[in-house]
Amino acid sequence: MITLLITETKLIVRYAETDQMGIVHHSNYPIWFEAARTDFIKKMGISYSDIEARGFLLPLIELKCRYKGTARYEDEIMIKTSIKEMSPVRIAFYYELFKGGSSEVITSGETMHVWTNKDLKPVNIKKHAPDIYLLMSSTC
Amino acid sequence: MITLLITETKLIVRYAETDQMGIVHHSNYPIWFEAARTDFIKKMGISYSDIEARGFLLPLIELKCRYKGTARYEDEIMIKTSIKEMSPVRIAFYYELFKGGSSEVITSGETMHVWTNKDLKPVNIKKHAPDIYLLMSSTC
Amino acid sequence: MITLLITETKLIVRYAETDQMGIVHHSNYPIWFEAARTDFIKKMGISYSDIEARGFLLPLIELKCRYKGTARYEDEIMIKTSIKEMSPVRIAFYYELFKGGSSEVITSGETMHVWTNKDLKPVNIKKHAPDIYLLMSSTC
Amino acid sequence: MITLLITETKLIVRYAETDQMGIVHHSNYPIWFEAARTDFIKKMGISYSDIEARGFLLPLIELKCRYKGTARYEDEIMIKTSIKEMSPVRIAFYYELFKGGSSEVITSGETMHVWTNKDLKPVNIKKHAPDIYLLMSSTC
Repeated sequence: MITLLITETKLIVRYAETDQMGIVHHSNYPIWFEAARTDFIKKMGISYSDIEARGFLLPLIELKCRYKGTARYEDEIMIKTSIKEMSPVRIAFYYELFKGGSSEVITSGETMHVWTNKDLKPVNIKKHAPDIYLLMSSTC
Repeated sequence: MITLLITETKLIVRYAETDQMGIVHHSNYPIWFEAARTDFIKKMGISYSDIEARGFLLPLIELKCRYKGTARYEDEIMIKTSIKEMSPVRIAFYYELFKGGSSEVITSGETMHVWTNKDLKPVNIKKHAPDIYLLMSSTC
Repeated sequence: MITLLITETKLIVRYAETDQMGIVHHSNYPIWFEAARTDFIKKMGISYSDIEARGFLLPLIELKCRYKGTARYEDEIMIKTSIKEMSPVRIAFYYELFKGGSSEVITSGETMHVWTNKDLKPVNIKKHAPDIYLLMSSTC
Repeated sequence: MITLLITETKLIVRYAETDQMGIVHHSNYPIWFEAARTDFIKKMGISYSDIEARGFLLPLIELKCRYKGTARYEDEIMIKTSIKEMSPVRIAFYYELFKGGSSEVITSGETMHVWTNKDLKPVNIKKHAPDIYLLMSSTC
């Protein structure tokens, strides 16, 4: 699968995101990946808010993070996001996190999601919202 | 006003709640006050989940915290909670936070809330849910 | 006191910052104020990381938030930050939060801090780091 | 490997831990796993605070979560924790999360850690703190 869309999302590390080790607490990376995913979907041409407003949700069923380096308060972070794989019922995003303009990957991660309705019941997005499926398919 | 119900809620400081100063980050105290408020309402004889299920919410309109001491990872925290004042449209809670069995107040706080419906429009709780109003009135 | 420096800091609401009311949880505003404070200090001409590296900390002793409106997922937030008052031993910041380019204040807040050393003992910053004191004084 | 120690840690879901889907945001599970890990180490006979005070840290290098069900505000959560594997340089914990007394696993997770010194440089814990290594070995 050739990835056609890879987005870059920037943020600055907040003081509240550090812990007593003096580095960013590991629980913040999934939150940053989510912010990057929001940005990816927006750059794809639709907002995730709009998708939810149409009655479709993307809860996580799996999360993986690999921590290779550390980030610290006030570091400038950049996250590269792409769709790793997708089907009419699920979708996986892949993330690589860099800091301060370096090309070294500090943290990488994957999130696997299922398409559901508002009651968190699985749905086939290709069938229920073919335009969203088509748009997402065009990025990977 | 004589406060008739003062609850005591315990918790242990989580690593994620510390920051690079080596102490609990100040943004966690409002979350702990909320956990203590949940416990207060439950001990009052109704759960806040049930109140929300009946269509009434209690969003904050004001928050005050005074930080006099510090808390650290693994500290045993105890929060005393009471209703400071209430009317049919708003309610204020007061909190005092202790650690390790000491009688010294580490942090104190107040939260002011308004009663609203699910659309966040203000409601008169005495009129719309007299039983909830009566129950809360009986504690202060 | 005439405020000479008022900074504007932007951020986008993260999904993780919402709660089951469908709005931003109130505990996130102090974290956003802190991000805005970091930005204010940087625009002042020194980074807070550098201040800490020199051995001076600014822990909170008081926090006040007034919630007048609500913010939601993906909202574009702008925070205006200024120094409200300062002395050689303490400093107060003031914040006003706007969304989506509107001039309506959604949330306002104040944080009062004391200058301390690494052991969290109060210090007179004018005496121990006159350059930092002078720089901060020049903004208000 | 026979696991000799499996601890059970309880907590109640906080309002701040929910998101606009009405369920617990996925980023809270790693924080809960950490609280459970703190409890595991304490029940093992030493506190993680003491381990850090002796100059040894356990930063994460890998995190995995599998979300099979959902948790909601005020749910009573129970986490079973055990050591999955360990060597003189790294250690992996395994977690299973239940709610409301049910035997159904809502979320499971794994965290892989390396032993480091205060400067986050890897250390051989068997060599530098044989008592800690022995204690941990005795649980799995």
